[in-house]
Amino acid sequence: MQIVKTIEELQNIRKNLNGNIGFVPTMGALHDGHISLIRKAKDENEVVIVSIFVNPTQFLKGEDLNKYPRKEEADIKICQMCKVDYLFIPQINTMYEKDEVLIKAPINSYVLEGFTRPGHFDGVLQVVLKLFNLTQPKNAYFGKKDAQQLALIQQMVKNLFLPINIIACDIVRESSGLALSSRNVYLTPEQKEEALKISKSIYMAGNLIAKGERDSKIVKDKIYEILENLDVEYVRVVNKRFDEIEKIEPSNTIILVVVRFGNVRLLDNIWM
Amino acid sequence: MQIVKTIEELQNIRKNLNGNIGFVPTMGALHDGHISLIRKAKDENEVVIVSIFVNPTQFLKGEDLNKYPRKEEADIKICQMCKVDYLFIPQINTMYEKDEVLIKAPINSYVLEGFTRPGHFDGVLQVVLKLFNLTQPKNAYFGKKDAQQLALIQQMVKNLFLPINIIACDIVRESSGLALSSRNVYLTPEQKEEALKISKSIYMAGNLIAKGERDSKIVKDKIYEILENLDVEYVRVVNKRFDEIEKIEPSNTIILVVVRFGNVRLLDNIWM
Repeated sequence: MQIVKTIEELQNIRKNLNGNIGFVPTMGALHDGHISLIRKAKDENEVVIVSIFVNPTQFLKGEDLNKYPRKEEADIKICQMCKVDYLFIPQINTMYEKDEVLIKAPINSYVLEGFTRPGHFDGVLQVVLKLFNLTQPKNAYFGKKDAQQLALIQQMVKNLFLPINIIACDIVRESSGLALSSRNVYLTPEQKEEALKISKSIYMAGNLIAKGERDSKIVKDKIYEILENLDVEYVRVVNKRFDEIEKIEPSNTIILVVVRFGNVRLLDNIWM
Repeated sequence: MQIVKTIEELQNIRKNLNGNIGFVPTMGALHDGHISLIRKAKDENEVVIVSIFVNPTQFLKGEDLNKYPRKEEADIKICQMCKVDYLFIPQINTMYEKDEVLIKAPINSYVLEGFTRPGHFDGVLQVVLKLFNLTQPKNAYFGKKDAQQLALIQQMVKNLFLPINIIACDIVRESSGLALSSRNVYLTPEQKEEALKISKSIYMAGNLIAKGERDSKIVKDKIYEILENLDVEYVRVVNKRFDEIEKIEPSNTIILVVVRFGNVRLLDNIWM
């Protein structure tokens, strides 16, 4: 594995790469979810590039960029173990300059996660586009866990006619069903037990729809029943453009659940 | 020459193209300025793609998109004559959808042409980025006549790390020195005679700087002297980021002149 620390180095390497390139952009602090993306990229491409970059432009004022977990040594070991070909770890100041050409997420991004973090997705799309242009992959891998981010990246690729396949990867779960998250460690054993209701409600919704249910209100009500005594932030049934929908359309529906346990916010979702 | 009318067709063609690709984006109504770009592209690349697309997003409300000159038949003949390989003429509705991921020109674009047409350059960058992603050229050709547009496209390529060379092409002039423009036909013979002062002032400025003058105020004053009895909209000395500069830096200076003759607005400039 070659660790690439500068943009110029990456550009020179990329010029001489042949074969299909798989790209996995990350903010580091790699866990089994990331590893599943990297493994899939390894299976499907001749060359795999992973990036680690804690992107400042997707943090809003007041959000603590410096507190974001950084585990570079462990991350490097994980990438070596996964047989990544190139690990790109650029310096912040080389990725941005003053008063840049910016990317603006569509208006429909200012709902749900985009409502609580206005401007967040502008920064996500900006860095992803930069990284796409640097790595020019055939395939780029993103987890379904961050559903709205994934949907917006898919929309950007479509709107800008980027010649890249976005590979949406299934949520990795503990054997109990709990969606993997670095936040799970903050849960008490009792909370963790209670949190299983989230994946249970998600599975139930998937089964209902598989059996033919198309009324999103009925599906939402059943989810709320299962989550009854929890602090539910939202349950939503949306299409891939994140418009709320009344009638479920298979292959264009995402069901999103966010539940709070004290300060810990757990997200889960299912793509139909 | 193959005329390509759909995005899917262009994408399929592009997948199978080898060798260096030169790209010349236009809004049609081709004149000798465009022809010089196409000829340069032919000289420097194995394959040349030209696009004709009157881009709606760079016209502001109140600007008459429908009045923009359209000469498709003549344009096709010119491209054939220039031995263009692929001429891309997409339909408007296939290039855009509702509520897209947008491109935002930097704050320093809201001066000069961007001041009179706020938002214009957002639309220019948006369509150029789409066309770049569709054609994936090695080299893309733009005239220096639209200096601010060219500077912003260069900035976009730099900020987004696009793997494309932007080739800045010299202004094509009549033998009198007058910069070529489709607007020149609206001038009376007397106005056309008077308009020669513009290129004269531009040449004089270039000579002054070549001889060592570095004070932009002195250069501007001499230009105003030559343009004395004309309706001058602006004379500016800027760097390539379009910040006004007091001290001229060779290879990072553009001198811009805009003069009005009634409703006709003539632009000229020189890049040092």
